[in-house]
Amino acid sequence: MTIRVGLLGCGTVGGGVVKLLRAQAKEIEARVGDRVEVTRVAVRDATKARVAELGDVAVTTRPEDIVADPAIDVIVEVMGGVSPAKALVLDAIARKKPVVTANKMLLAHDGPEIFARAREGSVDVAFEGAVGGGIPIVRALRDALPGDRVKRIVGILNGTSNYVLTRMQREHLGFAEVVAEAQKLGYAEADPSLDVDGHDAAHKLVVLSALAFGKRVPPDSVDTRGLRFLEPVDHASADRFGYVVKPLAIAERVGDELALRVGPALVPKDALLASVSGVLNAVLIEGEALGPCVLSGRGAGEGPTAVSVVSDVLDVCRALHVKKTGLFSAAIRTEPCTLRDPGEATAPHYLRFVVKDEPGVLGKVTTSLGKAGVSIRELFQLRRGDASADVVVLTHDSRTAHVIAALEEIDREPFTIELTRRMPVTLV
Amino acid sequence: MTIRVGLLGCGTVGGGVVKLLRAQAKEIEARVGDRVEVTRVAVRDATKARVAELGDVAVTTRPEDIVADPAIDVIVEVMGGVSPAKALVLDAIARKKPVVTANKMLLAHDGPEIFARAREGSVDVAFEGAVGGGIPIVRALRDALPGDRVKRIVGILNGTSNYVLTRMQREHLGFAEVVAEAQKLGYAEADPSLDVDGHDAAHKLVVLSALAFGKRVPPDSVDTRGLRFLEPVDHASADRFGYVVKPLAIAERVGDELALRVGPALVPKDALLASVSGVLNAVLIEGEALGPCVLSGRGAGEGPTAVSVVSDVLDVCRALHVKKTGLFSAAIRTEPCTLRDPGEATAPHYLRFVVKDEPGVLGKVTTSLGKAGVSIRELFQLRRGDASADVVVLTHDSRTAHVIAALEEIDREPFTIELTRRMPVTLV
Repeated sequence: MTIRVGLLGCGTVGGGVVKLLRAQAKEIEARVGDRVEVTRVAVRDATKARVAELGDVAVTTRPEDIVADPAIDVIVEVMGGVSPAKALVLDAIARKKPVVTANKMLLAHDGPEIFARAREGSVDVAFEGAVGGGIPIVRALRDALPGDRVKRIVGILNGTSNYVLTRMQREHLGFAEVVAEAQKLGYAEADPSLDVDGHDAAHKLVVLSALAFGKRVPPDSVDTRGLRFLEPVDHASADRFGYVVKPLAIAERVGDELALRVGPALVPKDALLASVSGVLNAVLIEGEALGPCVLSGRGAGEGPTAVSVVSDVLDVCRALHVKKTGLFSAAIRTEPCTLRDPGEATAPHYLRFVVKDEPGVLGKVTTSLGKAGVSIRELFQLRRGDASADVVVLTHDSRTAHVIAALEEIDREPFTIELTRRMPVTLV
Repeated sequence: MTIRVGLLGCGTVGGGVVKLLRAQAKEIEARVGDRVEVTRVAVRDATKARVAELGDVAVTTRPEDIVADPAIDVIVEVMGGVSPAKALVLDAIARKKPVVTANKMLLAHDGPEIFARAREGSVDVAFEGAVGGGIPIVRALRDALPGDRVKRIVGILNGTSNYVLTRMQREHLGFAEVVAEAQKLGYAEADPSLDVDGHDAAHKLVVLSALAFGKRVPPDSVDTRGLRFLEPVDHASADRFGYVVKPLAIAERVGDELALRVGPALVPKDALLASVSGVLNAVLIEGEALGPCVLSGRGAGEGPTAVSVVSDVLDVCRALHVKKTGLFSAAIRTEPCTLRDPGEATAPHYLRFVVKDEPGVLGKVTTSLGKAGVSIRELFQLRRGDASADVVVLTHDSRTAHVIAALEEIDREPFTIELTRRMPVTLV
């Protein structure tokens, strides 16, 4: 028998999926028990050239026809975006067709609805490609840890952000300069906001939180900060304190609450995550019994993401073959949860004040911090040569709310030239 | 319904399994569809105290009775060693009982036979706990990569060895001193040979090679070197060249052959594996489409290994519940393979000659290397103060056979005081 796959979207990832399914056809048939073939493909522009491996497979611009086609057994959605992907995925589930998707934006916004429909209908939805490209993080959280309780996840989930910070740090370059180069190299979109402002990482963090904690989190409620405020001096200063700036996405169990945060943070130089550079992604899982476990690899691109999508295709096809569908969806819960107030988080903070280089200013800054209960561990001043100075501070453990209150006061002072930069230190 | 588990061995890992199965009982029942309970336990010494969670579960010193007991559905083997574990596992398979094992020595020696019987009988054998403790490396290779071709695996697979090298390197301590301390801390056995001479890592490499390449390798045929020849000066010298010494286990596809090697090697300081320190384990998988992917975590201990064993228990119980057994074993092949001659490997080499501190000696060493076709990239001499000197060399890419031939000549020279140390550089 043959299991027939309908592919929605045939860009970089879709093309990679077609290639791998062809190249490994025998291996896959041996594993599944049936042949697995892409028999229909939906694209936006039917005139565009496709991968040669597609051969004479029927191409259409109407994905809804593929979902409705009774000759199609499995839907692979790699078109991205919420619309029309959401309607297509829900229609496939209603028709009892298993769905493989790499669409983190869709799952972050509509995962709870999609998973609920899938559970009700005993239909499998698999999504290893949605987070971390080829890193088997969904499998690790879904299949490897049912006997343990996850305490915390710390991810470097956006390759573009990691690339930008790595180059700024290693070559002492400015943010805009590196982003422009990343755009030329194809590592950043024309509008880089989804990546460098943290939204893409927040989507992935929401998906991982469903897997690790069984909780639903609206993506807009994640405390999300971007990278635009960083300058080369921040990387040099972090280095002087013994840290590296990394674009982190963190989800943590605190009592009955969940704390979620995306943004740049200082991690110790000798931590494993500090060595995850360039476009690489990584996820640290901390389990109660497991301890810390780090998975790292390429987070995007044709090859890695296609490997993940194909592994999911195999899983859902094997379930079809043995007529036991719905088990993959049954493992995913999305219960409501209470999010922790980000101000309650306690950590050492990195602060950089840009102030007039005048007597008395340092005293005022440190006094304001002290009044707010923020105690200083290290401090140095860098003269800028234009009668201004960077005052760089590393605090002891401080409540984020206290730090923010102190900065609000200091940022209103006449001696303050630019808004103060702040980043937490994250121990990993 | 209840799926009844018989536990063979109730030491550190077995106790952890009992605890986790109790603590996560509800979660597990939801995932499996049946309750999962340990109902019989075999131990060597029935008088020894066990984990409290065992309650009034029946304990016996006759594991063969548990395997034969028709009331037992699943066998978990965490006793270790080849005998009597092999006979028990084969008997369980013959009785169509799925087996979960964490026994790398057994699988390295008798994996091909065990997997063959399991395939013939459509019985599941799962072994996530056998390699890398809690790191989901078996799952990654078995389930996440069927669409890709693995090119190379580079592992830090023995926590004791990694701990010993890390402390030697960071604290400039000698091998014997660190091993003695590791024994006190419980990180090393009274007889540390299995760990520090590379045999344990070779066992695990053989298991990973079955998963990654579908090949059977007799563990004795792995080119295995231990750590005993290393001194603090080797770590300092590696550091001076920009490297860190790590205990690596490497399996690589070279044409139609497989190259396997266990032993200390120099890895670049900025590589991810260089940051894997202390008792941590890690595996780098290089897939053709996937690119490099690193998984790291605690490689041993009650918690991590028990998490892996429990994840396997869930898999095989779920397969029992849906009456589709044998799929996990079906995915593992152990075909014969041709091993590559280790002498054919090409890499830069680290060499340390201990020689008389006399004029002309350096010339003779470098001449011998040159004659053998080994070209030098960097070299420095360290006077020892007793009329001897360390001559430390980093070569350009050289065939291992050529290096060995040159060392055989040099080690016979009257100016040579100690056998020359050599390690390859491994790019990861």
